[in-house]
Amino acid sequence: SRSYRIAVLAGDGIGPEVMTEALRVLDAVEAKFGFTTAREERLVGGAAIDATGHPLPPETIASCEASDAILFGSVGGPKWESLPPDTQPERGALLPLRKHFGLFANLRPGVCLPSLTHASPVKNELIPNGFDVLCVRELTGGVYFGQPKGREERDGEPVAYDTMIYRQSEIDRILRVAFTAAMGRGKRLVSVDKANVLATSVLWRETAVQVAKDYPEVELSHLYVDNAAMQLVRRPDSFDVLVTENLFGDILSDEMAMISGSLGMLPSASLGKQKDGGLYYGMYEPSGGSAPDIAGKGIANPIAQILSTAMLLRFSLGENEAAAAIEAAVAKAIDEGFRTGDIATGAAGETKVGTTAMADAIL
Amino acid sequence: SRSYRIAVLAGDGIGPEVMTEALRVLDAVEAKFGFTTAREERLVGGAAIDATGHPLPPETIASCEASDAILFGSVGGPKWESLPPDTQPERGALLPLRKHFGLFANLRPGVCLPSLTHASPVKNELIPNGFDVLCVRELTGGVYFGQPKGREERDGEPVAYDTMIYRQSEIDRILRVAFTAAMGRGKRLVSVDKANVLATSVLWRETAVQVAKDYPEVELSHLYVDNAAMQLVRRPDSFDVLVTENLFGDILSDEMAMISGSLGMLPSASLGKQKDGGLYYGMYEPSGGSAPDIAGKGIANPIAQILSTAMLLRFSLGENEAAAAIEAAVAKAIDEGFRTGDIATGAAGETKVGTTAMADAIL
Ligand SMILES: CC(C)[C@H](C(=O)O)[C@@H](O)C(=O)O
Ligand SMILES: CC(C)[C@H](C(=O)O)[C@@H](O)C(=O)O
Repeated sequence: SRSYRIAVLAGDGIGPEVMTEALRVLDAVEAKFGFTTAREERLVGGAAIDATGHPLPPETIASCEASDAILFGSVGGPKWESLPPDTQPERGALLPLRKHFGLFANLRPGVCLPSLTHASPVKNELIPNGFDVLCVRELTGGVYFGQPKGREERDGEPVAYDTMIYRQSEIDRILRVAFTAAMGRGKRLVSVDKANVLATSVLWRETAVQVAKDYPEVELSHLYVDNAAMQLVRRPDSFDVLVTENLFGDILSDEMAMISGSLGMLPSASLGKQKDGGLYYGMYEPSGGSAPDIAGKGIANPIAQILSTAMLLRFSLGENEAAAAIEAAVAKAIDEGFRTGDIATGAAGETKVGTTAMADAIL
Repeated sequence: SRSYRIAVLAGDGIGPEVMTEALRVLDAVEAKFGFTTAREERLVGGAAIDATGHPLPPETIASCEASDAILFGSVGGPKWESLPPDTQPERGALLPLRKHFGLFANLRPGVCLPSLTHASPVKNELIPNGFDVLCVRELTGGVYFGQPKGREERDGEPVAYDTMIYRQSEIDRILRVAFTAAMGRGKRLVSVDKANVLATSVLWRETAVQVAKDYPEVELSHLYVDNAAMQLVRRPDSFDVLVTENLFGDILSDEMAMISGSLGMLPSASLGKQKDGGLYYGMYEPSGGSAPDIAGKGIANPIAQILSTAMLLRFSLGENEAAAAIEAAVAKAIDEGFRTGDIATGAAGETKVGTTAMADAIL
């Protein structure tokens, strides 16, 4: 039978408890669709700092290298917040993983289901049917990794600098991911930049216009990042796919996730180059954080982790039926009224559940 | 009697019509509080391009130089959108004005009055009492003006780059503006950065911690920009003063303005160094754009332009009583139910008015 290897990095906070549920769901689809996964559980983030002194130990990287994909929980918490930024769980684990595995394409769905508009901070009348946006963020370029980056004395005072830099090929490849995604959805792509100020954005916009020629069915438009930050608040349902560079994507995808109101339900995929056969090496993780305030209480919403597992099945293993089965089961559990605390209203027809019972409903 | 000089740059779109109303209000406070202003109306933006080929003609700069302050309308519109970015009305007028006059401190109130929460895209129960945030944006540094900025061929492909750079003294001076503003308000300051990724942000955060020692009464906290973009959506009323660098401020202050729901009511000030006597050279303009879709119809909300005039009176002329009188008159007109279309609900007790009638109510 088909068999795969997965590195399982549960991390901190609610990571381990939602991961447990995601793996139960994975067990179920394996049995149903006839494949197996060999799973290596490895330390990452604060848990890894506590055990080894490093947020991303070499054993963890080695295990990821030997796998077809990484299923990631979440990292960070108050315990490690006073460490220097470079060695903190988030920065010290996420950025090196992205760079090491060349995970340049971050796919972040921002979905507000029609039945969950009450959970969105935005007025229901602005999003009568909810919304479904896919944010595609460039993840290994721009000001995150650009050189020179540093600090020196000039004229007797400290001066610090970062470099926002893009090669055209880096822009080209992320745009192709976004155009391809748009082809499989509503065929509308909004490219976000700051081409009225940034040289990198001028190149970004030019490249978008060029690449668009290869996707004549997709309607491309451009928004300045400040305007995009406004439009996401006012009319999130006007977007289909949004593509942007690393820093803008960091800000806008989080803004969009908050606007959806269901952070605990949003998965993400960080993909490398497409391989022969169309699959990707990738890392899959919930969009939300480690939520230390509710960790260990059994109340976290496991859906983001479960849907991240579905993305892994689709993009890295090609087990599309299993992925679709998980997504359908999640939709059904919501339809049937199962609600963790983050998305509950107390309305009639709702069954309020904890982490495990939500996974049971999905199973 | 006290007399001053003001450069009046009405610009494009709704600029001229809201400027007309703001100048009527200025006439009224001059008569009432016993001072006069000599006003030079000059071309800027698209209107200046059409007349002279340049969005910021030398005569306009000369007039600004000879004045105590600039009252600015708004610039831009579809007619000039296909010009190269550098010569477009917004970019070609605003950035050179900021740089030429050293306007490093951008104050942007993000206010949602308790009586206008319905106009906010955010659910009323999240902002039961509206909110009142002051966003302080650094306006002449960072990636906007940092060198090197440009483009070249490397390994046979175009590469583009921008430099995000800050000297400590640039960070120090904007933080002092923000701390001083916080002292006059709720004494809580949130400094927004991306210190887990950017060297400039690490210096920013360090400087904030240092400067805070001079303002022991102000409670300083730090947020990463992605988190700030989320918190503004979810709990805008938790902020008092927010301070951040140029690019982050561009994005967040626009996001905040949209969340307030009353873009047509939000003024802004862009200030240079404080002069002897405590006044500033400054440029004052509505936060919203030129709104070409409603220009010439007499329906634009003139309040942003009128409140910008009040800010000018306070910060550049020291006519504090006149400024306060304008602000009180605006609050009263809203209290009495006068509403332009952008903030109207049709509820009982509202009087729907156009641009001129709103100014009449304020007068
Ligand atoms: C932790 C941080 C470096 C990271 C980023 O900015 O990319 C995080 O905010 C994210 O979006 O995954
Ligand atoms: C027009 C543009 C250059 C400008 C900016 O980015 O600063 C505008 O968005 C603003 O915020 O005033």
